[in-house]
Amino acid sequence: MNAVVNRLEVDLGERGYPIYIGAGIHANADYYRPHISGTQVMVVTNETIAPLYLKNTLQALDGFEVASVILPDGEQFKTLEVLSRIYTALLEQRFTRKCTLIALGGGVIGDMTGFAAASYQRGVPFIQVPTTLLSQVDSSVGGKTGVNHPLGKNMIGAFYQPKAVLADITTLNTLDDRQLASGISEVIKYGLINDRPFFEWLEANMNALLAREPEALAYAIERSCRDKAEVVAADEKEAGQRALLNLGHTFGHAIETGMGYGEWLHGEAVAAGMCMAADLSRRLGWIDGKDFERTCHLIQRAGLPIDPPKTLSSEQFMALMAVDKKVLDGKLRLVLLHGIGESVVSDDFDQQMLQESLGVCRI
Amino acid sequence: MNAVVNRLEVDLGERGYPIYIGAGIHANADYYRPHISGTQVMVVTNETIAPLYLKNTLQALDGFEVASVILPDGEQFKTLEVLSRIYTALLEQRFTRKCTLIALGGGVIGDMTGFAAASYQRGVPFIQVPTTLLSQVDSSVGGKTGVNHPLGKNMIGAFYQPKAVLADITTLNTLDDRQLASGISEVIKYGLINDRPFFEWLEANMNALLAREPEALAYAIERSCRDKAEVVAADEKEAGQRALLNLGHTFGHAIETGMGYGEWLHGEAVAAGMCMAADLSRRLGWIDGKDFERTCHLIQRAGLPIDPPKTLSSEQFMALMAVDKKVLDGKLRLVLLHGIGESVVSDDFDQQMLQESLGVCRI
Repeated sequence: MNAVVNRLEVDLGERGYPIYIGAGIHANADYYRPHISGTQVMVVTNETIAPLYLKNTLQALDGFEVASVILPDGEQFKTLEVLSRIYTALLEQRFTRKCTLIALGGGVIGDMTGFAAASYQRGVPFIQVPTTLLSQVDSSVGGKTGVNHPLGKNMIGAFYQPKAVLADITTLNTLDDRQLASGISEVIKYGLINDRPFFEWLEANMNALLAREPEALAYAIERSCRDKAEVVAADEKEAGQRALLNLGHTFGHAIETGMGYGEWLHGEAVAAGMCMAADLSRRLGWIDGKDFERTCHLIQRAGLPIDPPKTLSSEQFMALMAVDKKVLDGKLRLVLLHGIGESVVSDDFDQQMLQESLGVCRI
Repeated sequence: MNAVVNRLEVDLGERGYPIYIGAGIHANADYYRPHISGTQVMVVTNETIAPLYLKNTLQALDGFEVASVILPDGEQFKTLEVLSRIYTALLEQRFTRKCTLIALGGGVIGDMTGFAAASYQRGVPFIQVPTTLLSQVDSSVGGKTGVNHPLGKNMIGAFYQPKAVLADITTLNTLDDRQLASGISEVIKYGLINDRPFFEWLEANMNALLAREPEALAYAIERSCRDKAEVVAADEKEAGQRALLNLGHTFGHAIETGMGYGEWLHGEAVAAGMCMAADLSRRLGWIDGKDFERTCHLIQRAGLPIDPPKTLSSEQFMALMAVDKKVLDGKLRLVLLHGIGESVVSDDFDQQMLQESLGVCRI
């Protein structure tokens, strides 16, 4: 296959790196080699991805001293205990601090492999090969790595940048519809945050995305990564502006934690969370009913939930959100909307209205 | 007590920080407050240190939202599992990413608290209050944090700098002799590496150090930190020169791992390791018999072992050293001596001579 491969630079000075977006690149040595400095390479993947893509990846790494470790698949395995298996594999293979890790899989594999790379012998390089739409548009940019703790999601981790990201759109063909939709949820998020034209492009092209048309997918991935890279480059360590990327995530994390990791997909929880944020924004009079409905409608067209789980009470929501990282000195801060493509971080909202949004969020 | 408090700057640009060396400072609010930006403070300590120094430390932090977590004492508890208790305490207290951690204890507490700080919510600030001579002269400078893995010491961690270090020499009065000697082992190391005048000062003042004379201790701590800070400032991420600080450590780590963590104190293992490095250097003809004897003699006067454990065979040594972080692309590199105060990193040594040094190392 000789499809066009786009290259996007994430500009972080000496920590900058390229994102390659194209068909078949996970199996192409040319995209790995310039980013591997030593001789030892460890591919970290999971039980679902290994049968699909591990063989071709290993072939592309021919000539290196290559090993692989296959983890169980699922958010519920994103733990310190499972992370430790990566260290064990590296040590059993006597991999030194000159080795390179390759994350072949979705967001869980990317986050765990990135944190393993950040912490193995106090830091070794890694390359991301995200195989889901969610991880291609989310984890590819930002350098967030880590694992969950029983008391909260992503509470243990590091900011650590990869040497390169290989986003291979052919790997999206093996995603089930629910996983594809979960990725589209994050894509919609970029439109809502600060890119209204992209939101409108999504309204026009949702059917093409759901039909997995390569050009539509490649465009959506590139534009999402570009939108995210702009925000991240301005605020690498999440001091301020970057918090906008968490639109829907404070609600969403509460849903994921409250329902048990793995029950709701990340993008599904974020989808409902974005609708809740839009709902609260409407109650506050910050957006009109039309923007609220367009938001929920686009999310619904992607096959995503627009309501929080009925079994989660507003009291449970409040308790779960209180441990969220966006709580500053005890004060809950949320990403809300002043319009489609115009988001703000705010702690200046009516508590009663928040309670209402937690309880009901119906289109 | 109004003794003089010395302030030493570790120059790492925006990651630079002060080391305060003096009597009573662990109980003095003035040395904490300038380095705490938020309102929440978590003191991490262990079961040995808590009854001695926790109360005064908490009093010095009066006015902050303070909590503490008390870990079991010992190198064998420097694990991911025990580290996780720090995260749990932070999350149970709903500590946000604006909190500050304080490491009150020896090297194990410092390493674990530093790594918890590096990884809790992807990084929060921390202050070190080292209560052992070893941690005051070793962990205070360099930003190395982490935990052990069953297959190797310090294999999981991060480079992460504290906001300040409070080295309180009064806390050394509660050390047992074996722990004091373990700290002196690292002090001697600085003389051997690149500070021959300090080595000679130690020959003249070993009795004063062993008698815990405050002036001698304060001088030895400051000079050791200064020597180490110079090396670290030139090579923060251990790309080259910094490896010299590992004199005695490749052998020493093998002893610690081989005997089981906690059996030999770190400084004891390093002491025997330094004698082994000196022994190999002598066999190679790089140092003369006189420098070898002065090295072992000073180490012996400090009450430290000069021989490796008799139960560890040279085959076991070689296997254990093969996973050492200083192995580059499968090649063992050692810190050796060209003289007292003149060390080099080298892989250019006779394997037969190494075998001899592993087997016998007698003065």
